Amino acid sequence: MRSIDEALELILSHTKNFGVEEISIHHALNRILAEDIFADRDYPPFNRSTMDGYAVVASDLLEKKLTELKLIETIHAGDIAKLRVSPGTCIKIMTGAPIPDGADAVVRVEDCIENNSNVQFKTTFISPKQFIAQQGEDIQKGNLLIKKNIKLDAPAIAVLAVAGKARVKVYSLPSVTVVSTGNEIVNVNDKILPHQIRDSNSIALSSFLKQYNISCDTVLEKDDKIILKETFKNFLHKDILIITGGVSMGDADYVPEVLISLGVKEIFHRVKIKPGNPLWFGVMPNGGVVFGLPGNPVSVQAAFKVFIEPYLRACFNMEALKPFYLPLFNDKPKKSKFTEYFPCSIVTKNKVTGLESKKMNSSGDIAATLYSDGLAIHPERTEMMKENTIVEFYSWNS
Amino acid sequence: MRSIDEALELILSHTKNFGVEEISIHHALNRILAEDIFADRDYPPFNRSTMDGYAVVASDLLEKKLTELKLIETIHAGDIAKLRVSPGTCIKIMTGAPIPDGADAVVRVEDCIENNSNVQFKTTFISPKQFIAQQGEDIQKGNLLIKKNIKLDAPAIAVLAVAGKARVKVYSLPSVTVVSTGNEIVNVNDKILPHQIRDSNSIALSSFLKQYNISCDTVLEKDDKIILKETFKNFLHKDILIITGGVSMGDADYVPEVLISLGVKEIFHRVKIKPGNPLWFGVMPNGGVVFGLPGNPVSVQAAFKVFIEPYLRACFNMEALKPFYLPLFNDKPKKSKFTEYFPCSIVTKNKVTGLESKKMNSSGDIAATLYSDGLAIHPERTEMMKENTIVEFYSWNS
Repeated sequence: MRSIDEALELILSHTKNFGVEEISIHHALNRILAEDIFADRDYPPFNRSTMDGYAVVASDLLEKKLTELKLIETIHAGDIAKLRVSPGTCIKIMTGAPIPDGADAVVRVEDCIENNSNVQFKTTFISPKQFIAQQGEDIQKGNLLIKKNIKLDAPAIAVLAVAGKARVKVYSLPSVTVVSTGNEIVNVNDKILPHQIRDSNSIALSSFLKQYNISCDTVLEKDDKIILKETFKNFLHKDILIITGGVSMGDADYVPEVLISLGVKEIFHRVKIKPGNPLWFGVMPNGGVVFGLPGNPVSVQAAFKVFIEPYLRACFNMEALKPFYLPLFNDKPKKSKFTEYFPCSIVTKNKVTGLESKKMNSSGDIAATLYSDGLAIHPERTEMMKENTIVEFYSWNS
Repeated sequence: MRSIDEALELILSHTKNFGVEEISIHHALNRILAEDIFADRDYPPFNRSTMDGYAVVASDLLEKKLTELKLIETIHAGDIAKLRVSPGTCIKIMTGAPIPDGADAVVRVEDCIENNSNVQFKTTFISPKQFIAQQGEDIQKGNLLIKKNIKLDAPAIAVLAVAGKARVKVYSLPSVTVVSTGNEIVNVNDKILPHQIRDSNSIALSSFLKQYNISCDTVLEKDDKIILKETFKNFLHKDILIITGGVSMGDADYVPEVLISLGVKEIFHRVKIKPGNPLWFGVMPNGGVVFGLPGNPVSVQAAFKVFIEPYLRACFNMEALKPFYLPLFNDKPKKSKFTEYFPCSIVTKNKVTGLESKKMNSSGDIAATLYSDGLAIHPERTEMMKENTIVEFYSWNS
C-alpha cells in the first residue's frame, strides 16, 4: 500500500500536456494562462494626474510663494494640453489626464479658489510631483507583467484588459468522463427503491471540475463486467477517466480487472489515506489517466482535492495548492491508522481564525462535507489532536 | 462624508427581492438556495454494510466463540438478502448492501477464509454492530438537511443529488449593467493613443459577478452629459446599475447630476475609505440601485468587495462575508486619514499562515491586485501597522 506522498509522486509523473489555445479575454475567467504577458507600454503610460486640480510649476508656490496663478487652459482625461505651463500660470486638470509640459505638481481643486481666469491657492505648502503618477512608475514597457501558469481570476483578467490582450493563450482543457458504478445507484431523477441510493458523485466531481472551467460527461453503470468493459472502451481516448465505486475488495469490484483487460496499466492500488483508501490509478494506452475512486461521497470529494486537483494543476504547470495552517478549535480523535482528511469550517472566535471539524459518522455520511470550507489533515503518526493544534488545511475553493 | 459602516447600512437598507425560480440541479452550482431542504428518507436509508465481508450474528463469535459459520447466501450492493442470518450461519455482503435480517455485525473479508460453503474467522474478537452504518444515524427523514440562503458549492450540490432534488428553488439573478465612463477610455481591442487607457473595470466587475452566476451588459461611454443621460435612461429598469468614473470633483464628473436628472435619488456621495472615496449610491425609480464608482481599477475592485458584494448577499438573504484574522508579515504605513483596504496575498512562513501586502503605488496601479488573494483592512485610527499585527482580511473568492 502506497503512502500519500508516493501515490502523489506516481500520479504527478504521468501528467499530460493538453496543449494551448488562444481564446477571447471574455471567456478566460478561471482558465490557466499559458503565455507570459509583457507590458505593451509604460504604466502609467504618461505622467498622469491622480486628482482633479491645477497643474502648476511647483517652485511658483514652494519657492516664489505665489498664491495666485493665471489659468490658461482646462483639460479633461482624454485631452492633451495645447499650452505649456510656464511660471506664473496653471492649467486646470482632471483625474486621469496627462500632465501638461512644464508642470511638475498638481494642487487639488479643494485647496484652490477659481476666480475668472485666476486661481488662488489656499496653501503654498505642496510637495514636488504631488498628485502625479509618473510614467512607468508601476511597470515599464517590455517588463514581465503577468507570469504564466496562473489561474485567471478577476484581478488578472483586469490586467490583461489594460494591456490590450483581447485574445490570450491558455492551456486547452482535458476531455474528462466520470463513470459512477454500482448496482444500488440510481440517477437523481429516477424512482428509488428502499435499498437503493442516488448518485451524487458525478455531480460533485463535475462541480469541482468547473472551478477550472472543465466540463465532463457523466455515465452511470451497473457492476457488470461486460457492461463496464463496453463502457470503459468508449472512453479510452479521453485525457482523464474518473470512475467511482468498484475498486475495493468486494466480489463485484470489477473496475481494476476490467480496466487492465482493456490495456490500462495499473500504477498503484490502495493508499494509506482515510477516507479513500482503495484508490486505484492507471494509465491508458493513449497516455491519459484513470482515477478509480471508492464510491462513498466523502472519499470522492477528498480524492478530488488530494489527488485529482494536484494532477490537473501539474498538467497546467501550476504551483501546488497552498495549504493554510490554522488552529483547530476542537479535539479530533483518530479513527484509523492512516493519514486522515476531515472536513472543517473556517470560523473566527475572539478575532482568532481557525477551524472546526464537521461531525462525520462515516465516509458514507452524505452531509459530512456540507457547510465545510475544505479538508484538514490528521497526520498518520498523531493520535488525538488536542484543541488548538495547528493543522494543515486545504480550501475547496482554489 | 459617510463612514464605511454608515454607507453599508444605507446600501443594505435598499435591498431588493429578485424573486425565486426553480432550476435543474445541473445549473445550480454557485446559485443561492431559496428553499430549506428536508431529508426525503432516513440517511443511511437502511442498515448498510460499510465493508466487504460477512454478516453474522455477533454473539456467535463473541459469546459462543464459533470460528466457522455456514455461508448461506451472497449479496451485493443493490441486492436484498432472500435469507435470514440465523445462529451458525452468515451471508457474504458487499459494501453498500443492506444488512440481512438477523445479522448484527460484519466481519471484514480480510479477516476471514472462505472454504466452499463455510467461512472461517481469524478472530472472534469483534464489536457488536461493527461495520454497520445504522439507518438514520446521519440524519432522520423529515429533518432539515440543508438550510436555505447558502451558496450551492460542490458539497451542497452533492447533498441535493442524494436527496433527489433534481430541481431546486434558487433566488433569481438580478439584471445588471456596467457602464464605464471616461473620454480617455477605450475598449480592450480598440486602437489606442498615447494619452488613452483601456477599460479594465467592466471585465473585472463582470468576472466578480460570475462568482454568483450573474451576467451583465457592459457599455463604454464618453464624459458627455447628453450621451450619458441617453445611456443611463436605457438602464433605469435594471436591478443594479454600476457606473465607473465620473463621480469625483472634476469638471467632467457628470454622473451624479445626470442620474439625479433622471429621477435617481442620491442616498450618499463619498465615503471615508481609501481607495474608493468618491463612491456615489442612489436608488432608481423602479427600486433598483446605482453604484457610482471612481474609475481607478483598485477602487473598483475594492468597491465590489466592500459594498456591491455585501449588497448582493443581503438581497439573497445570505450571511455577511466572513473575514479571516491573520498576521500581517510586513509593516504597513498609512497613506490617508481614512480606513484603507489593501491587497494581500496569503502566505505561509514556518507553518504560520499570514498575509503579505502587495506593493501599491496608487489606486491607479494596474497590477496592484494581481496575484493577491483579497483585501485586508487598515483601520482609520491606526497609524503604521507593525509586522505581525493581526488584520481583518476578505478573500476575493466567496
